[in-house]
Amino acid sequence: MTSQTSWLTISPASHFSLANIPFGVISTESDSTHRPAIAIGDYALDLAAFAAADGFSGSATIKKQAHVFSSPTLNTFAALGRPFHREVRAYIQSIFAEDTQHAALLKDNASLRESALLPLSSVQTHLPLSIGDYTDFYAGKHHAYNVGVLFRGPANAFQPNYTHLPVAYHGRASSVVVSGTPIRRPWGQILLDPKAEPKMPALEPCRKLDLELELGMFICRENTLGEPVPVGKAEEHVFGYVLMNDWSARDVQAWEYVPLGPFTAKNLGTSISAWVVLADALDGIKVQGIKNDTDLLPYLREGREDNVLGIDLEVDLITSTGNKTTISKTNSRNLLWSWPQMIAHHTITGCNLRTGDLLGSGTISGPDAGTEGSILEQTQGGKVAIRLEGGEERKFLEDGDTLVIRGWAGKEGALVGFGEVSGKIEAALPLF
Amino acid sequence: MTSQTSWLTISPASHFSLANIPFGVISTESDSTHRPAIAIGDYALDLAAFAAADGFSGSATIKKQAHVFSSPTLNTFAALGRPFHREVRAYIQSIFAEDTQHAALLKDNASLRESALLPLSSVQTHLPLSIGDYTDFYAGKHHAYNVGVLFRGPANAFQPNYTHLPVAYHGRASSVVVSGTPIRRPWGQILLDPKAEPKMPALEPCRKLDLELELGMFICRENTLGEPVPVGKAEEHVFGYVLMNDWSARDVQAWEYVPLGPFTAKNLGTSISAWVVLADALDGIKVQGIKNDTDLLPYLREGREDNVLGIDLEVDLITSTGNKTTISKTNSRNLLWSWPQMIAHHTITGCNLRTGDLLGSGTISGPDAGTEGSILEQTQGGKVAIRLEGGEERKFLEDGDTLVIRGWAGKEGALVGFGEVSGKIEAALPLF
Repeated sequence: MTSQTSWLTISPASHFSLANIPFGVISTESDSTHRPAIAIGDYALDLAAFAAADGFSGSATIKKQAHVFSSPTLNTFAALGRPFHREVRAYIQSIFAEDTQHAALLKDNASLRESALLPLSSVQTHLPLSIGDYTDFYAGKHHAYNVGVLFRGPANAFQPNYTHLPVAYHGRASSVVVSGTPIRRPWGQILLDPKAEPKMPALEPCRKLDLELELGMFICRENTLGEPVPVGKAEEHVFGYVLMNDWSARDVQAWEYVPLGPFTAKNLGTSISAWVVLADALDGIKVQGIKNDTDLLPYLREGREDNVLGIDLEVDLITSTGNKTTISKTNSRNLLWSWPQMIAHHTITGCNLRTGDLLGSGTISGPDAGTEGSILEQTQGGKVAIRLEGGEERKFLEDGDTLVIRGWAGKEGALVGFGEVSGKIEAALPLF
Repeated sequence: MTSQTSWLTISPASHFSLANIPFGVISTESDSTHRPAIAIGDYALDLAAFAAADGFSGSATIKKQAHVFSSPTLNTFAALGRPFHREVRAYIQSIFAEDTQHAALLKDNASLRESALLPLSSVQTHLPLSIGDYTDFYAGKHHAYNVGVLFRGPANAFQPNYTHLPVAYHGRASSVVVSGTPIRRPWGQILLDPKAEPKMPALEPCRKLDLELELGMFICRENTLGEPVPVGKAEEHVFGYVLMNDWSARDVQAWEYVPLGPFTAKNLGTSISAWVVLADALDGIKVQGIKNDTDLLPYLREGREDNVLGIDLEVDLITSTGNKTTISKTNSRNLLWSWPQMIAHHTITGCNLRTGDLLGSGTISGPDAGTEGSILEQTQGGKVAIRLEGGEERKFLEDGDTLVIRGWAGKEGALVGFGEVSGKIEAALPLF
């Protein structure tokens, strides 16, 4: 498929090549209805319009289920399972292929191209799925170490369980927002002087607002409460992937997180990219993650070493003066656990996953300077400023800063990319 | 209202007196449609049938919104807000009052009584609301102390933040089930010998399966992401309350919970009672909770001391041989934080609550023996067995055990009760 070309002009640098075909939910100025779409080159194909014009008439299987493309979210499409997603993706690739057998359905149908093939710049994107539960893992080993050192010192950086199971906590689903949504600087309980006794918190606007660079994964196939998913069958439950920025109030987190984990420090917002890259589109780019020398329990053994995604990742910080600096370059191979392992562990006590559940990888940091997935790590807890283009500096995020995360795999002309996830920091509101 | 009597025969011992009118979702053998109902005495009033027969014709306000009673969950009803809930409850009380002005609508309408007033024993109950996010607090101070001692020793039982903010963590919404749903004993990662080095977990069926006695609260009114709810306005966001049993695998929890909190140890199931007692029905029973000597930050100050609910609570353990023992008697006044304080803290960094979100109080234990809300506490971590009727003993729950939690406020003839939340432990499945 990667060698195919399209009758549509697609820049070789586009994340949305013919090899990708990611799914999202759009609306337009003239039609505020939320409906599914795919992204290709600089365009979105409105799948509701395409289905209504009988665009799926070339496949009896898809045509029978084409009602899922008039749903306001991708949940009904996702619930149909990976074989169906695979068929739809291949069909849409065939629709856009240079040598398409279905020219009449779009290529040669000027009026449908006009009404259904919309410039990306003209569409509004929305949360692609209605999210049931959101779980955030902690599979970025370098991140876990760096943060562990800052919060508990090097001797206790890793807890004894860290290499035996994919540590995770339940996140907040309601505050997951789509790329482009502004993020309000929160107020929160903060210990301004951590060494003073007795400890007296203050209510202040967060002073240590940070990003967390993550991959997100959406579940398609449900399992029954009480019935774990075997690691070898976990891939069937994966709908696709997004970029994620799990915004974090570090000063709030440091005070509140014992003994039950982060709570209000993470509730302020979690941004995800708008286009879900299907699991099948990334099947070919599995690589070896961080080697785990622990003798794993059988339910976590996959029998393969190339089990994590190798996505190149970059973080840009754009200040309110417009200066843009790439503050981090890393890769999602910096994970200790694979998605199938995370699913197997998530369900081992019987937890039921539902269509639209979102799982986060945890922050992805490489081992070296400049590969960190959070500012906390890069500035060693706010001690060493990051130097930005134009002479500015940052120890944490300031009002007016915009964070942009990009991610992609593959080569020019056949990139499988996520586009970006971005968010701009707004000043704290006056409180009450 | 409490002195009123009904034309319907209601036992003075009934939790569902005319002073209560709790809301739930039912189906019947002849009609599997999920629809809203209220419980009164030994009956459920099918609100879909009542509305369809123009039962709400005595109130223009309610009649206009009566479509919410044909919804499969209470979310649309809840979303209309407390003034509307108040009006509906008062109207239904007037329908059932001895001196009802609306006798033709039900009392004297034999065929509607036949079709809409259904024996509770003949209806199936379902989850009353579709739950968005589930958050579990840790407001039971005696419980937090008892568990803190077991997990970290007396010196570190309370973390320094405990009296400054209502500690909480995100729970799992997908595994919340209605009373009566069996609970499968989970497998999980367990450290069989916590003192051995290096630490080597095993995958085993849970050996320390436990209950957590809690109150649950459902949110009705949403707030916007980024905009905290002031404590003085938090009551407007409370739809009503349920009993909750947050089943816990203690051996799994002890190994996994650092540093991000409990995860698979709590995912196996959380049971709630079927009937939601409206906030208004319990407004009169606020009492003083556990006194907090900490100088609270202003956003948590309520300016009143009688700020928690005073619900009497009992836990029965029924073994597979049928022996029933009341293993705990306590009261929900044993909480350090009120629901408005929990809401104010939950939203302080801007987290948006949505209609149908479920908040748990945390385990409710009294200070004395026999008032603990978990077996972990009562057996001091499994050291001292609980003696049951018939000569049996328990250190944790065994297969075939049924747990029944009851809760009520008020006096005979005007009880405002929850009925019960029950669940029976099923043996672990063979794994894969």
